[in-house]
Amino acid sequence: MNPPGEFELIRRYFERPGQARNALLGIGDDCALLASVAPGALAISTDMLVESRHFFADVDPSSLGHKALAVNLSDLAAIGARPLAFTLALALPQADETWLRAFSGGLHALADLHGCELIGGDTTRGPLNLCITVFGDVLPEKALRRDRARVGDDIWVSGQLGGAAWAVADRLRGPFSAEPAVRSQALERLERPQPRVALGLALTEVGAAAIDLSDGLVGDLAHVLDRSGGASGVGLGARIEFDRVPLHPVLLDLPVAGRAELALAGGDDYELLFCANPARRGDIGFISSELGLTLTRIGQIDTVPGVKIVQADGQPLDFDARSFDHFR
Amino acid sequence: MNPPGEFELIRRYFERPGQARNALLGIGDDCALLASVAPGALAISTDMLVESRHFFADVDPSSLGHKALAVNLSDLAAIGARPLAFTLALALPQADETWLRAFSGGLHALADLHGCELIGGDTTRGPLNLCITVFGDVLPEKALRRDRARVGDDIWVSGQLGGAAWAVADRLRGPFSAEPAVRSQALERLERPQPRVALGLALTEVGAAAIDLSDGLVGDLAHVLDRSGGASGVGLGARIEFDRVPLHPVLLDLPVAGRAELALAGGDDYELLFCANPARRGDIGFISSELGLTLTRIGQIDTVPGVKIVQADGQPLDFDARSFDHFR
Repeated sequence: MNPPGEFELIRRYFERPGQARNALLGIGDDCALLASVAPGALAISTDMLVESRHFFADVDPSSLGHKALAVNLSDLAAIGARPLAFTLALALPQADETWLRAFSGGLHALADLHGCELIGGDTTRGPLNLCITVFGDVLPEKALRRDRARVGDDIWVSGQLGGAAWAVADRLRGPFSAEPAVRSQALERLERPQPRVALGLALTEVGAAAIDLSDGLVGDLAHVLDRSGGASGVGLGARIEFDRVPLHPVLLDLPVAGRAELALAGGDDYELLFCANPARRGDIGFISSELGLTLTRIGQIDTVPGVKIVQADGQPLDFDARSFDHFR
Repeated sequence: MNPPGEFELIRRYFERPGQARNALLGIGDDCALLASVAPGALAISTDMLVESRHFFADVDPSSLGHKALAVNLSDLAAIGARPLAFTLALALPQADETWLRAFSGGLHALADLHGCELIGGDTTRGPLNLCITVFGDVLPEKALRRDRARVGDDIWVSGQLGGAAWAVADRLRGPFSAEPAVRSQALERLERPQPRVALGLALTEVGAAAIDLSDGLVGDLAHVLDRSGGASGVGLGARIEFDRVPLHPVLLDLPVAGRAELALAGGDDYELLFCANPARRGDIGFISSELGLTLTRIGQIDTVPGVKIVQADGQPLDFDARSFDHFR
């Protein structure tokens, strides 16, 4: 029996009955067709995942399917868009059907949870590489643009930070000691991040600037400062009170410098960081209760350039603040 | 001096002054924002290019930048969409600035020619991999869908076929003998294909079904038959008169079986194949004159299943008709 070819693999693992709910035309033509979302705009983001860089070679393929879409949905969350559809380009070393079944299962489960439909893609042979492009709907004037932070804004984060970075460090430099239950929670943060889509949608009503935490809080917050400062013509800075930063429980056994490195410079948490006027604290508390998601105020935007991390006594905190960069 | 980081590389080689002409928000946020194109729909396609599979490792990076976008624009052409914007995800083994300068030069030159703007992307380290997702505007009822071929339609192709496949065969199994000028024309077809965007737009006025020739005429035409037959409930077939097929001049020294294999089963030409009612022959002749592009009628849609290739005497032509499949 011949092995299944490229088009049969797509049919078996990626086309689905009842497809093209959001799209006018789904998988199988030269292009997919997506209806206009007027008066909204289409929010578009693309992320590429490479073996040994974004995931370990032995990762469970179902988790990988989840994560490949999750990191893209996280970008929609960070601009406040409602997920509509995505494309998947996939380079595979070989057509391993067990792998493909698990991968597509993890991918479609998360897609279904967010009503986000696979509308097209490309499948080729090559070193394992996953490239997803995701599409969402947002009113342009309500988008959580990075350039909308203002002096005096509160800085907030969702969830807890550092769990995913701990799991990476544990794998590369460990094993560290941790309670089994807490260890597996941290690994779950790395392998199956939860994109904060509902939070992003809710924040469009409070006038926030947002970014998702993929490369580390210090570096990601710096992008917000760069973009917002450029727009207003005033150099912006941020002051973060380290004692307020919500830490993943797995960090609590570490010394303070280790906690800070993982929670502030570690990536892969895919929580949202957002900046909003202090007048909106009540609304944000309400959103937190409605979503059952911890939202923590960790600092404020100011005019002193750079991201300053301070301890309870007001002294600067010393730690390795280098954010992740693929070419450094 | 530190090497440039990920964000500096993006700034140097991919961001451009005066960007965001088509987009509401371009490079630099979590998502790009594209305004609605109502009453049109957004046509979306994604293609991934992998070293040693889609291009030779020693390819000129400027040509590679051209080709990575060209194969995506070709998908817009094949549905009749006007190019608007694209995203680029790029995995690079290292940050080689000479390579990046040439690559982005080739990419932007073709993008400018088609008014298609880079609105976002992702840059990471890994085995060389280029994934472009492209966006265009088309009226859904005029889209050149693969499922719109009907019994009795003429089958047409643009340009000349087999040049790109000859260049691949010459490299892998040759060198073959060829006039230097003709050889370099064939190589040009492989390395710098011309997406038939203007043709696709013109064909929206004649009610055609179209596909771009990337994997070989026989296999690509079979996709049109599959999709159109499914829609009408009648099994469709196609009869191609080989003597009518426009051959690239580099094929003319080959025996007929070699000509047929390269022109009918070879990929990478990125010409359009389209099917239209015979009543539109005059309109199609007019489009050909207007665009200065040869359009050739090579056969007809019928009800005898499969793609039949016949010689001048009406006898079937025998050749290796296997279309390209990445997993066979």
